[in-house]
Amino acid sequence: MDLNGIRLGIIGIINEVINYLLKGNTSSRIIGVGASGDVTKEFDKISEDIIVKGIRSIFNDNVLIVSEELGAKMYGSGKWVAIIDPVDGSTNFDSGIPWVSISIGIAKYNESGTKVKDEVLAIVADVFRRTIYEYYNGEVFIDGVKAFRLRQPKNVVFGYFEKPEAYGIIPAYWKVRGSKVALRSLGSVALEMIYLGLGKAEALVDLRAKIRNVDIAAAYRIAHTLGARAALCDGSPLENFPIDDLLNVKCLLAGYDDNVLNKLINAYNLFRK
Amino acid sequence: MDLNGIRLGIIGIINEVINYLLKGNTSSRIIGVGASGDVTKEFDKISEDIIVKGIRSIFNDNVLIVSEELGAKMYGSGKWVAIIDPVDGSTNFDSGIPWVSISIGIAKYNESGTKVKDEVLAIVADVFRRTIYEYYNGEVFIDGVKAFRLRQPKNVVFGYFEKPEAYGIIPAYWKVRGSKVALRSLGSVALEMIYLGLGKAEALVDLRAKIRNVDIAAAYRIAHTLGARAALCDGSPLENFPIDDLLNVKCLLAGYDDNVLNKLINAYNLFRK
Repeated sequence: MDLNGIRLGIIGIINEVINYLLKGNTSSRIIGVGASGDVTKEFDKISEDIIVKGIRSIFNDNVLIVSEELGAKMYGSGKWVAIIDPVDGSTNFDSGIPWVSISIGIAKYNESGTKVKDEVLAIVADVFRRTIYEYYNGEVFIDGVKAFRLRQPKNVVFGYFEKPEAYGIIPAYWKVRGSKVALRSLGSVALEMIYLGLGKAEALVDLRAKIRNVDIAAAYRIAHTLGARAALCDGSPLENFPIDDLLNVKCLLAGYDDNVLNKLINAYNLFRK
Repeated sequence: MDLNGIRLGIIGIINEVINYLLKGNTSSRIIGVGASGDVTKEFDKISEDIIVKGIRSIFNDNVLIVSEELGAKMYGSGKWVAIIDPVDGSTNFDSGIPWVSISIGIAKYNESGTKVKDEVLAIVADVFRRTIYEYYNGEVFIDGVKAFRLRQPKNVVFGYFEKPEAYGIIPAYWKVRGSKVALRSLGSVALEMIYLGLGKAEALVDLRAKIRNVDIAAAYRIAHTLGARAALCDGSPLENFPIDDLLNVKCLLAGYDDNVLNKLINAYNLFRK
């Protein structure tokens, strides 16, 4: 199967998951705890099962699948890597907040380490709007149409602040930036990363150490291609982050471009002092 | 025209605004500054014009209209009060974040002061989903079907924290509550108030002094009827807040029920010490 065949198969899987999620008879019963320690709800598990079954079919059972539920599981010879997040925004889905996504990133398996930038295909779907954002052939498409970013990002910053330590960067960022802008905590970091790529927001910060590579691996391939730039708080570029195992990102700074990212890094250093 | 006639007319107006907003050729050009000091974008103004024109027709030009743009404007003898928010979530609308609402509350004009609890009709529409939440005849309906709330609210707290002073209540609330839950800043407080009423969230806090009565007057009539309870930080119940002039709410605490509201008040006092 060529890459376009893989791509079509994955879009098929995603449609199946969206249809399941929007049919209205999902259950939020807690049925276990994933490899990451988070609780797994029934709709998470069913969505993941649909995706894993589909990915195994597409790759003839020769694929390393990385997910919250499985951790990293090698099927057959594992010539490919599929890094998946069946439902990003489980809390939102459960509360009826229409900001929920599905992420699938695909790369050729590399023995010396497979990274975000190795992805040859990345698909993120907005579940409630049935919109598909896609990295394919070096370009980004929205529902099949080439995507463009706004020249000037909107004055919106995304972040998560359950802990005071995680909030601290915000006043520092306002200082570096020179003024405040709208702050949103929406609950699906993959969609937020895409919005950053499109220029519908200017920055995304998360210092809670809760984000995992499965959450953003596909979205960042898309956002980076559009011009967004992200780094861990130690300054290492997110495009070099591994995707062949389930890993925490720890501390994420992402901007519309290098300029915004540098401001975030300055704000982070100001805040740490 | 009886109350049902008024209700049908208002639903007609709301559909007109939603159709305009979702048609995809709106403009975000800044065209002025409203009575409240916020900038007015072209889509805000056009939405407001549709609503004001419609309300004036429905009430034969005998109505006091309260809005961000007009302040409080008396037409004719003003036997009625209409308190309106054409687009709650302008920043979201502008960024394509699907969490935007329209609010219209209707009360008989009372010379000695018209309050939230005097509303005889309250309609809040979720623009992107075209869902209509309605208080009418003492009950709440969602797209015409009687609404019920969850017995146990979801573990979600809504809030806005652009300023560190506004964030301070959150760690205090975790202390009073005994554990952290998901924190969301979604950007349309009317919809969040409705979600509180339905039990899709447990609390809503905003200490930024940016919320105005136009934002929540209709939503709170709906949420309160479902069992939610809200107060200003001085403890005065939100149902007694005036709706016959454009006013700031200053400091808002709202809970799924009295129990949650009391915890929020405790958290606020803890935080102020």
